[in-house]
Amino acid sequence: MNNFEFYNPVKVVFGKGSISRLAALIPHKSKVLLVYGGGSIKRNGIYTQVIETLKSFDLIEFSGIEANPHYETCMDAVKLVKEQAVDFLLAVGGGSVIDATKFIAAAACFEGEPWEILSKGAEIKKALPLGAVITLAATGSEMNERAVISRVSTKEKLNFASPLVFPQFAVLDPEVTYSLPAKQTANGVVDSFIHVIEQYLTYPVQAKVQDAFAESLMKIIVEEGLKVLDHPHDYEIRANLMWAATNALNGWIGQGVPQDWSSHRIGYALTAQFGLDHAETLAVILPGVMTYMQKAKEEKIIRLGEVVFNLQETTKEKQIFQTIAACEEFFRKMGLKTRLHEYGITEGDLNILVEPVRQMNWKLGEQGNINWEVAREILLLRV
Amino acid sequence: MNNFEFYNPVKVVFGKGSISRLAALIPHKSKVLLVYGGGSIKRNGIYTQVIETLKSFDLIEFSGIEANPHYETCMDAVKLVKEQAVDFLLAVGGGSVIDATKFIAAAACFEGEPWEILSKGAEIKKALPLGAVITLAATGSEMNERAVISRVSTKEKLNFASPLVFPQFAVLDPEVTYSLPAKQTANGVVDSFIHVIEQYLTYPVQAKVQDAFAESLMKIIVEEGLKVLDHPHDYEIRANLMWAATNALNGWIGQGVPQDWSSHRIGYALTAQFGLDHAETLAVILPGVMTYMQKAKEEKIIRLGEVVFNLQETTKEKQIFQTIAACEEFFRKMGLKTRLHEYGITEGDLNILVEPVRQMNWKLGEQGNINWEVAREILLLRV
Repeated sequence: MNNFEFYNPVKVVFGKGSISRLAALIPHKSKVLLVYGGGSIKRNGIYTQVIETLKSFDLIEFSGIEANPHYETCMDAVKLVKEQAVDFLLAVGGGSVIDATKFIAAAACFEGEPWEILSKGAEIKKALPLGAVITLAATGSEMNERAVISRVSTKEKLNFASPLVFPQFAVLDPEVTYSLPAKQTANGVVDSFIHVIEQYLTYPVQAKVQDAFAESLMKIIVEEGLKVLDHPHDYEIRANLMWAATNALNGWIGQGVPQDWSSHRIGYALTAQFGLDHAETLAVILPGVMTYMQKAKEEKIIRLGEVVFNLQETTKEKQIFQTIAACEEFFRKMGLKTRLHEYGITEGDLNILVEPVRQMNWKLGEQGNINWEVAREILLLRV
Repeated sequence: MNNFEFYNPVKVVFGKGSISRLAALIPHKSKVLLVYGGGSIKRNGIYTQVIETLKSFDLIEFSGIEANPHYETCMDAVKLVKEQAVDFLLAVGGGSVIDATKFIAAAACFEGEPWEILSKGAEIKKALPLGAVITLAATGSEMNERAVISRVSTKEKLNFASPLVFPQFAVLDPEVTYSLPAKQTANGVVDSFIHVIEQYLTYPVQAKVQDAFAESLMKIIVEEGLKVLDHPHDYEIRANLMWAATNALNGWIGQGVPQDWSSHRIGYALTAQFGLDHAETLAVILPGVMTYMQKAKEEKIIRLGEVVFNLQETTKEKQIFQTIAACEEFFRKMGLKTRLHEYGITEGDLNILVEPVRQMNWKLGEQGNINWEVAREILLLRV
């Protein structure tokens, strides 16, 4: 096991009716900015629940956060925060809304050009306090200190992390996910599965707790994920998927182990250039990373096949091949495409990616050996 | 899954050499009280490491914390804290030292008689900040807000909990456990195994993540526990046991599930009356609780046998019987006794327990149906 440091002060409030706890969670007399997305929370009743429970607070609203939240939109919110002297941010939505709210919290207190938080890793010395109500089990953003923001004008999608943007609380009510479109539910399942994979599928370092926890989460996400589209109103399925998704990216399973976030990073570039959903990019790329890197990841791929997909092939080669196939099949069963051509992206289109990505000087993967040329080979496997 | 709230702000610093991080973890210019036990940290070099790294701090010491730390001893430390205007407490030791330090932190700021924190659950409004360096993988106290304190004069052993006594940090260096006596290592293994059992072995509520994590921890504790006495200097075994023990009682696996701490509570009474080590009481009592409560715990016992001990008996009854036997066999392999008569305690001796315990008005177990009469039946099974 590698050395590690772990810290996560997010208070989790989990279960039926937990939105009603909001008024007790937000500091008394705060001026609250409610941040949300395109208005689905108004259709499914969550908005009304939140407004009801917060009626004693001075509350203003900022809506219109997009999927892959835009820097430009966040900066409009920052302007509002400053004008109105907001002192608490409440994100109500999926990972995009929470990510945006984290960035707004940091940008509102930042001296200088806030884009540098993303582009240059500029240090954050202060951030507004925030809380989160999640409406989609997927990103784990509700219980971590990370966010991903996109800039439309330059087609960039970049991330940042700071302990100052941990939400003070995360409200997780599985019932709010009943009304999600199947596509979003499926994306969330695949996203959380791949979050676990990226902290697991490297090489073993005898971190038995972390490995067993990761394997448990993948098994649960596959089992419950394959049921949820047929049973969208089943509380236990929704609850287990929600809690698994939080566990997948709250830092816990990734302590003391090597990690490989290359599928995510390559995926950001695909989203920025071609507009694919985040989970769509992952379902395409991961089987390519597994195939291309199968020697380096051999032991873990074999075990993943055994533990998560009950595979017991007669040779290493077959076990690896079938495990990669099982992952791809799982994504397809969830309704996601797994090939670039299915999104109309050709070998030639990949050249468009070259310039912005080359500037990033990638050294991805647990060995740092996935540069742009390797990433291109991986993507070619997925055309 | 049941509703739950979870909060745990302890910063974990894990790995080789992590004691050297201490100076950066304690607030600058603190007046530090170093709290430790009987002096084993002086023999194994940990004391020197701590003193070295903290040489720029104003540091005083309080040693002599016992196993099952005494209220009387803690109150001597409180006196010192007040006289010397200490503003940070550093526990260096096992669960007893950390528990004592938590109580000292709360008692030093308490108005009135601090015993009431334990005897009456008196509210703690303030506590001194504390940090912990653990020297024994066992109690999980380094990453929770709980403590157990004994009062010699009245033969009572009581617990309390408050978010104000979460350590600010927990330093976990597996190497410091190399020199532990085999007996202490074995006690720690059994203690942490039973911590998991007490959050797992009730009835299922479809909490798949929590159950799978608990099963993972028990499997790891059994596998590594059975190796550690023969390989006390194996870093990976020590590291996995240490991290498993922290995970066993940092609150994570117990969220949203019913719990049954009856083995612990009955064990406290045995320790207070007859002086058995904490783990010794658990190894005796748990098989009794499992046997007496086997109907109510049926589903979970059967699964425990399958997952942790690879048992596949042909009938429910056999599976339950063999699973209980496997737990007892595990404790015996770790060198612990599992019968009261082996400690010289007879049926007649149990009557000594009656009065103090009857006053506690026990309603233990996940159904609250273990009162003193039931506990006595359980203990009679273990004579």
